[in-house]
Amino acid sequence: MTSQNPENSSNLENAMQLMIQTFHKYSGNEGDKYTLSRAELKEMLTQELGNYLGNAQDKDAVEKVMNDLDANNDGEVDFTEFVILVGALTVACNDFFLEYHKDDNKPGEKN
Amino acid sequence: MTSQNPENSSNLENAMQLMIQTFHKYSGNEGDKYTLSRAELKEMLTQELGNYLGNAQDKDAVEKVMNDLDANNDGEVDFTEFVILVGALTVACNDFFLEYHKDDNKPGEKN
Repeated sequence: MTSQNPENSSNLENAMQLMIQTFHKYSGNEGDKYTLSRAELKEMLTQELGNYLGNAQDKDAVEKVMNDLDANNDGEVDFTEFVILVGALTVACNDFFLEYHKDDNKPGEKN
Repeated sequence: MTSQNPENSSNLENAMQLMIQTFHKYSGNEGDKYTLSRAELKEMLTQELGNYLGNAQDKDAVEKVMNDLDANNDGEVDFTEFVILVGALTVACNDFFLEYHKDDNKPGEKN
């Protein structure tokens, strides 16, 4: 595996590769190497989302997602659930971003 | 905005930032600057997923997702739909990755 961040990859491809790499970095620690145990999930959240978890506003988003995961909790998070988790957090971050840049989008400049 | 790829961001945070940056890079081209028109979506797919689209196997995955988007198609893709799209592609890539490394996970080494 020599393609961690190949120069010819697009930003989006890099994002996808980073998600896959991150999942497998933690999923291999214990039990099924292709799923995250709840402990592995929490470690991943702490290690990978420290900057976000340090922010009270985003802590809210994380807890909401954790509760969602609890609903169908079999103690393991597979890659699809991981991607849903990351996606939900990314949507929350984007909402924050939009709110922050709200004034940039004034509708008044027709043409 | 000076935080494109801050050194102290984790891989997962970088992935999330890359997804947000990529969406807004294309969503601002025409119409609503916070949604992708179908033209913007196709441009994004072509520009950002060239390496994947070049591969027949993944072309299948993209078309499947495109059809899913068609179902509730109002001509615009918002950030949540974009994240679902990227997530589905990432899951497809991960499946490919798992298939490729299938032999690494032989169940036979109990203990």
